[in-house]
This record gives sequence, structure tokens and C-alpha cells, in this order.
Amino acid sequence: MITTTNPRTGATTELDLQDTSTAEVDALAERATAAAAGLVGLGREGRARALEAVAGSLEAAREELVRVADEETGLGETRLNGELSRSAFQFRLFAEALREGSYLEAAIDHAGDTPLGPGPDLRRMLLPIGPVAVFGASNFPFAFSVAGGDTASALAAGCPVVIKAHDSHPLTSLKSAEAIAAGLDSAGAPRDAVALVFGQEAAGHLIAHPAIRAVGFTGSLSTGKVLLDIVNRREDPIPFYGELSSLNPLVVTAGAAAARGDEIAKGLFGSYTGSGGQLCTKPGLAFVPAGPDGDAIVDSLRSLTAEGGGHVLLNERISQAFDSISERLASSGAPVAARGQAEGDGFVVPPTLLATQASDLSAELTEECFGPLIVVARYDGEKDLVAALELMPHSLTATVHAEGDEADTVASLAQLLEPLVGRLVFNAYPTGVRVSWAQHHGGPWPSTNSQHTSVGVTAIRRFLRPFVWQNAPETVLPEELHSDYDAIPRRIDGALVLPGSAR
Amino acid sequence: MITTTNPRTGATTELDLQDTSTAEVDALAERATAAAAGLVGLGREGRARALEAVAGSLEAAREELVRVADEETGLGETRLNGELSRSAFQFRLFAEALREGSYLEAAIDHAGDTPLGPGPDLRRMLLPIGPVAVFGASNFPFAFSVAGGDTASALAAGCPVVIKAHDSHPLTSLKSAEAIAAGLDSAGAPRDAVALVFGQEAAGHLIAHPAIRAVGFTGSLSTGKVLLDIVNRREDPIPFYGELSSLNPLVVTAGAAAARGDEIAKGLFGSYTGSGGQLCTKPGLAFVPAGPDGDAIVDSLRSLTAEGGGHVLLNERISQAFDSISERLASSGAPVAARGQAEGDGFVVPPTLLATQASDLSAELTEECFGPLIVVARYDGEKDLVAALELMPHSLTATVHAEGDEADTVASLAQLLEPLVGRLVFNAYPTGVRVSWAQHHGGPWPSTNSQHTSVGVTAIRRFLRPFVWQNAPETVLPEELHSDYDAIPRRIDGALVLPGSAR
Repeated sequence: MITTTNPRTGATTELDLQDTSTAEVDALAERATAAAAGLVGLGREGRARALEAVAGSLEAAREELVRVADEETGLGETRLNGELSRSAFQFRLFAEALREGSYLEAAIDHAGDTPLGPGPDLRRMLLPIGPVAVFGASNFPFAFSVAGGDTASALAAGCPVVIKAHDSHPLTSLKSAEAIAAGLDSAGAPRDAVALVFGQEAAGHLIAHPAIRAVGFTGSLSTGKVLLDIVNRREDPIPFYGELSSLNPLVVTAGAAAARGDEIAKGLFGSYTGSGGQLCTKPGLAFVPAGPDGDAIVDSLRSLTAEGGGHVLLNERISQAFDSISERLASSGAPVAARGQAEGDGFVVPPTLLATQASDLSAELTEECFGPLIVVARYDGEKDLVAALELMPHSLTATVHAEGDEADTVASLAQLLEPLVGRLVFNAYPTGVRVSWAQHHGGPWPSTNSQHTSVGVTAIRRFLRPFVWQNAPETVLPEELHSDYDAIPRRIDGALVLPGSAR
Repeated sequence: MITTTNPRTGATTELDLQDTSTAEVDALAERATAAAAGLVGLGREGRARALEAVAGSLEAAREELVRVADEETGLGETRLNGELSRSAFQFRLFAEALREGSYLEAAIDHAGDTPLGPGPDLRRMLLPIGPVAVFGASNFPFAFSVAGGDTASALAAGCPVVIKAHDSHPLTSLKSAEAIAAGLDSAGAPRDAVALVFGQEAAGHLIAHPAIRAVGFTGSLSTGKVLLDIVNRREDPIPFYGELSSLNPLVVTAGAAAARGDEIAKGLFGSYTGSGGQLCTKPGLAFVPAGPDGDAIVDSLRSLTAEGGGHVLLNERISQAFDSISERLASSGAPVAARGQAEGDGFVVPPTLLATQASDLSAELTEECFGPLIVVARYDGEKDLVAALELMPHSLTATVHAEGDEADTVASLAQLLEPLVGRLVFNAYPTGVRVSWAQHHGGPWPSTNSQHTSVGVTAIRRFLRPFVWQNAPETVLPEELHSDYDAIPRRIDGALVLPGSAR
């Protein structure tokens, strides 16, 4: 019997759902395989319409989805409404990407003489990789869960998805899957292109299943490693795209502290406590200069934190981990500088500010703590800062707050931080990830385990594989590779050609 | 003491070279790390010139390289001259790709309102991943070895390479590395951008080294698995791009057998025996229809094979494996139909034709046999053929010989073969891989272990990672992301913009 827990009260309700048996997983994987042809058969325009229908269907179910998700996650209706909009937007963005067509990387090299002799006609394009397993994340019940970017990008690619529902929001997962299936159905796409499994055993069985061709995972490093091991033990290892852990250091320069310390303190407080600090891009460590301007930032952060209300965390596991990690950090050299309220039932924790010196930083003090906690490290001059930054674990993001007249400092910080992260943010906050064409959500291990990304349009590439037809009759070629097709960007004999260009 | 063996005689010579110690590997990895900045600092144009200089340097050393490689591999001067030209061509092709600049995937999303609220300025581009370990392959002493596509694409990306010399051609490896270093030097690129290691222990130590950020490997499935295990046990797993094993089935339809059986037999013989059958795309299994047209093909293949001269294989290991695998295949239901000559000293084996029925095919009979061997499977009608094709292991390629009036057969074969391979060849042979923009060299496991490819321009992407700058001052952005830069294709607010377009 599957249960759902309200994190605001800790109260648990039994659902009329069971863990998925391995036999059921087998059946779902088979059905997903069968659905692949249907998805591909829709063509790009058909799949674009199906994704738009899914977006519409999610929005039509908004009221129920947000209500159920709020009960299961405690994230609040404002945040959840925004997140649902983001989910719908992601489906529409991939519809746009399908119509634009660059993602296919279509290329034609005509037969002809080459410096190495006569060359055959080659036509290359990306094809869907096959059914994909997706793991819903606890902290984004919509945008990184059943209705998340992995699902949207996989369906866009033409890959059916089988999703492991996160046990923190089983009902939200179920309702999301129903909304997606209804959307697919209304657009003539196969319902079986999206399926849901519950339970750890089912998850392990799923990613070991021969029909599954890739895995998308957003979650903890420890769970990610367990799954990666299962994948690596397969007879045919498959790509595992994991987003695993991130500290997201933030640096305040002396100039920025002097110019807008109060504004930065407020921004930082909002960024580290937003959504209860349960965002993979939460700044977990901030470097603040020594001296009065830095003191003012810390004072302001201390007041904001002390006056801050408690945050309901997603589940008991996360709330317990918050307690133990925050204790560990405090006893490793970053004592508590301020702690806010934590009243009420359920999994409530206080916003927590820890303080240390940059020169005292250690591997222990760079542990990621999911939840509303930040470590402020005071640094005394650039040398001190640089020495500390060199200890930073790899992250999704790093952030620099600096002033326009600090160009040299900014340049050296950028150079130092670039190898450590996937995104470098200036004078803003790493949370609130924009979903767009140029966006990217990855970084060196352990922030992610691949160069690929789960946010932004290129997320689709994770679920595609290149394929080349040599000297093929046009009848077997996808239309995008027909000689007279010109509705998408293609590379012809090495030169990129835009739609509608003279040929 | 490292030795080199002449496969034509089996005679072994001691070289003035030692296996690289682990301490030396550490030093080389550190120097490679230090060289990365120099490669990046050259910029795209500087690296393009360096690659062209390397191409010129390889050609300048042609006489010695071919002579040494011929002594170490027995592949013959014609083939080796062609392969050296291909190596030089690959370096020049990547120079072209650097100047064209699409490979950077530059994208700019300007700050502005979005359906989800105000969005920041995001600028995305691919950056070099860092030092890369490359494993030279035995069967391509130039084009898949020290001077091969992995090295060319990694250097193009801006990644230094540390190459494990294949023990079948240590001297060729050394001379190639010297030629590359001379080319880099002449173009003002860091010599340490290419280094060489010898020995298995050094190889294992290399790919476990923290400085190494990716591995390119072309070789056997068994060695690939050993290396992959080392990579997976790293604290920070890195991408391993392996090209591992491939059977490359080829189908002759009834129509093709009737129309040009003799031509096909000759082509097939050339393809399975070329370079001693030591090509990853060698057709190892051919489906020939039952009946007189198919009989004629087999008769012709039988004569060609029986009259064929022996082939010197690359080393004793490969020659012994050829003997044992061909015996295993013969005793598993594909008896010898013809065997050619195998005279002379050294690692000489005969061209070998095995024959079986498609309906008798088994997993045992689809084992890859490196060397001049092909299994011909006779099939009785399309149903028989389809049943047999469903047993095929995944491969780099599949090939169909068919006539223009067999459109339905061709369509159903294409559909059946597409999921099994990375390249589908029509009325030609899978060997003789064209190196070009649209080319691709990969396929589902075990032919390769990733969607990426070691041949063609997209090989460069294996050694790049996406990076996003958010709200960055122009001073920290690469020039390709400056607002007024327009020398390369870029995606601006979702739309692809070609160089010199109105903006």
C-alpha cells in the first residue's frame, strides 16, 4: 500500500495504489516500446501538437494538480502555480524546437570527389534512442517530475517515457501522468508513451530492462550512484543523465559590498530560503569580504534569518538530513550565526545562517545541505578568497556580485570559477533558472555526470542518436533528408543552410 | 624494454623505450593540464593553423612514417599512404570546422519578458572539457591511433591529449607523436598538448588520473570493458567513448543477386579481405538468397577466396584469435566453404569463407572475427531473412544490396535494420568510411557505448561541455558571444543566424 504524507502535519494517508511489480514493469516497458513507433509516426508537427496538447491538459488540471501537490509537498500555491506554468512552458518550448528542426542536426554530404577519392552520398540525422526511464525529483513536483523537462524532452525526441514516481508526491505523480495521457490522447498520440511506476524495486528493475535506452535522473548523489551502478552492470550499458549535487558558491566583492550590501543581503536571503532552500541551484556558501561593508551584509543576513519564519520541508528524510547536516557543519567550524523560527507540526525547520572564515574552509564545510541554510565565509583580500575557491567542489553554478569598476577582479574570478561550474551568474542569484534556448543545467561531477543538461532546448539531445544513410534511395530517407526539403536548417556539403534559402 | 614485432616475419626488435612509469604518467597529465590554457589561448584561428601545421608535418614525415608503420603492421604501403593522407585530411577538416564555428553551439537569449516573467541575459557556448586520454587502435596505425581522429578532434576542441601507444606499433606511435609535436611547435602551440605513454599499467593509471576529463577508445569489447570499469570506479566518473565491436551484416536481395551477382561477389570479397579484414566495418556476415542466383554469388566468392593469397595480420594475438574464432564458427554450424593461401612466415592467415543457412544462425555464429573471414548465410524468402536479422547483434553498419524495383523489400529491410546500427549502406560496402561533415561512426552497444562518434566533424563534441554566462559583462565573455560578433552561426533568441546576416 502506497502512502502519502502531508509535510505540514506529518499526517499520512493510504492511497489506493501499490508498488509496481516487476512483471508490471516488464509489461510497461514492452508497451513503451510499442508506443515508440506511434510517437515517431506523428512526425515533428504531430509531436509538437501533442506536446502543446499536454501543456494545455496540464493547465486545464491546474487547480487539482496544485491542490494535490501542495498537500504532498507543502511548497505553497504561489510557487506551485508558477512551477506548473513552467512545466507547461517547457512542453511548448519543445514544440517550438520540433518545428524549428535544428535539433535533428540534419546534414547531407553529396557524392563526389574528395581529397581522399570519390565519396558516397551521406545523409545524417538524429533519431530517437528508444524508451527512456525518468526519475521524478522531490523538490519540483511538476518541472522536474512526471510533467518535467526530462519527460518533455524525451517525448519531443520521439521517446516514450516510463517514470518512477517520487515517493514524496505519489498522488501528484499520478494526476500528472493522467493529465499528460489525456493530452497525448487528444492529439492522437499513444497514451502508452507515458507510464508510471512506483517503488524502489520497480525502479531498479526498470533501468535494468533491455527496452530502456537511457535514464534521466535528478536527485541525490547517493541515490544517483546506486542507479548508475545498476546501469553500469547492464549487459548493454545505457546513458545515465544524472543531476546529483551542487553547492553553488556565491562571491561578493569588496566593491559590491560597499555599493549595495543591503540589497545583496536581501537577495541572498531570498535565494537561500526560497522554496525552503530546496533548489539544486540554492547558494549554499557565500563569500563576503572582511571589514565593515561585509559586516553590514552579515548583520543584515543575521536579522533577516533570525526574523524568518520556519520552512516546511518536503519530507521527513530531507528534514532529518537538514538537522544532521546543519549540526555537522556547525561543529566543523561554521557555528550558527542566526536561526529563525521553526514552529508548527510537520517537517518544519528554521532558516539557518552559519558563519566561518574563508581560511577555515574544509571539505567538510562544503557539503551540500538541502534546505534553508547558508554558510557565510568571510575573506580577507583576494588571495584569501582565491585559496578558498580552489577548495570548492564542482557545482551547477557560481555567482559573482561585483561592480563595474572591478574588471580585473571579475576577470580573475571568472577564470577561476569557470572550470568548477556549468553556469556563471553575475549580479543576480542562481535560483530561478530561466528555461530557454541558451539555458543549460549541468556542471562537472558531481553536479552532473555528463556534458548534457536537463534544462533548455539541448536537453532533447540526450535522447537522440546519430544515424547515417549512405547512398540511400529517397524512399527510405526521413523527409527532412530529402533533397528538395528545405523547411529546417541543414548542413549541406559542410555549409549551414537556413530554411527557404536559395539552394 | 619495449619491443616491436614485424608481423611479416614474427621477428622482434628491442627498442630504446620503456613502459611509462606511473610517476611519469602523473607528470605528463600535469603537463597536459598546463598545456590546456595554451591551446585555448590560441583561439579558433590559432588552433586551426596548428592543426594544419600538424597535417603538413605528418605529410612531411610521410616516407619514414609509412616505412616504419609498414614494418610494424604489415598493412602495405598503398594502404598506409592512403591512411596517412586520411589522417592529415582529418586534421584539416577540423581546422575547417574551427573556422566555421558552428561546433561551439553559440547561443544568446537576451534579457526580456518571458511567459514566466522577466528573464536574464544568457549566453551559452561549448568549452573544452580538459585533457583527454586516447587509445591508439592496432588496425589503423595513423587514422585511429596517435595521429587519429580522437587526437585531431580533441586538439580542435582545445583539449590536450595523452595517448596510449598501441603495443603493435610503438615506433609508429613515437614517430607520429614527434611529427605532431613538431607541427604544434611550428604553429606556436604547446608541444605538451600531445604526450605518449607506453604500457598497460600506465594506461590504467592514466584514465584514473584526476586531470584526465574524457577517454577515447577504439578497440576490442573485452579491453573496452576493462577500461570502462576503471573509469566507472573513479571518484568522478568521466565520459568514456568506446568503439568496441561490430559484425556489419550485409543483405543481398533476390533482385540484386539476379541483376549483378558477380559484381557483388567481387565487391564483397574486396570488402571482407581488404586490409586483411582488420576493419571495424568489415562485413562479417552476408545474407545471400537461396536459388541459382545466390548459388552463383557463393560460387564466385568460393573461387575468389580459394585463389586468394594469405593476409599478414597485425600481431600474434589477432592471428591466434582469428584461428580460434574461425574454428569456433566452423564447428558451430558454419563449415568452411573455401579457404585461400596462407604461406610465408609471420602472422599469415588465409581468406576464409564459411557457409551456413540463415535458419541455422545462432548467437555463436554472430561473433565478430577480426581478419579476412566472412560467413555467408543463405536465406529462403523474406520471412527467413527477417527471422535471422532479428538475431543480429548491434553493429556500426548494415548494408543492403537491392534493385530499384524492390522498393517494398528495401523499405522493410531499412526499418528492420535501423534500430540495430548507426549507418545503413545501400549498394556499396561498409568499409572505406568517408570522413566528412555528415559522417558518423557509432551504433548501439556493443558497437559503441555512446551516441557520440569518433569519425566525422561531430567527433569534436565529445570533448566539449556546455557553459552558460548569465548577465555577464562583455569583458569576461569569449569573443564569440560578444553582441557585435557575427563571424560564426549563432542562435539568437531562438533563431539561428548565419555569419554576415542582417542583425
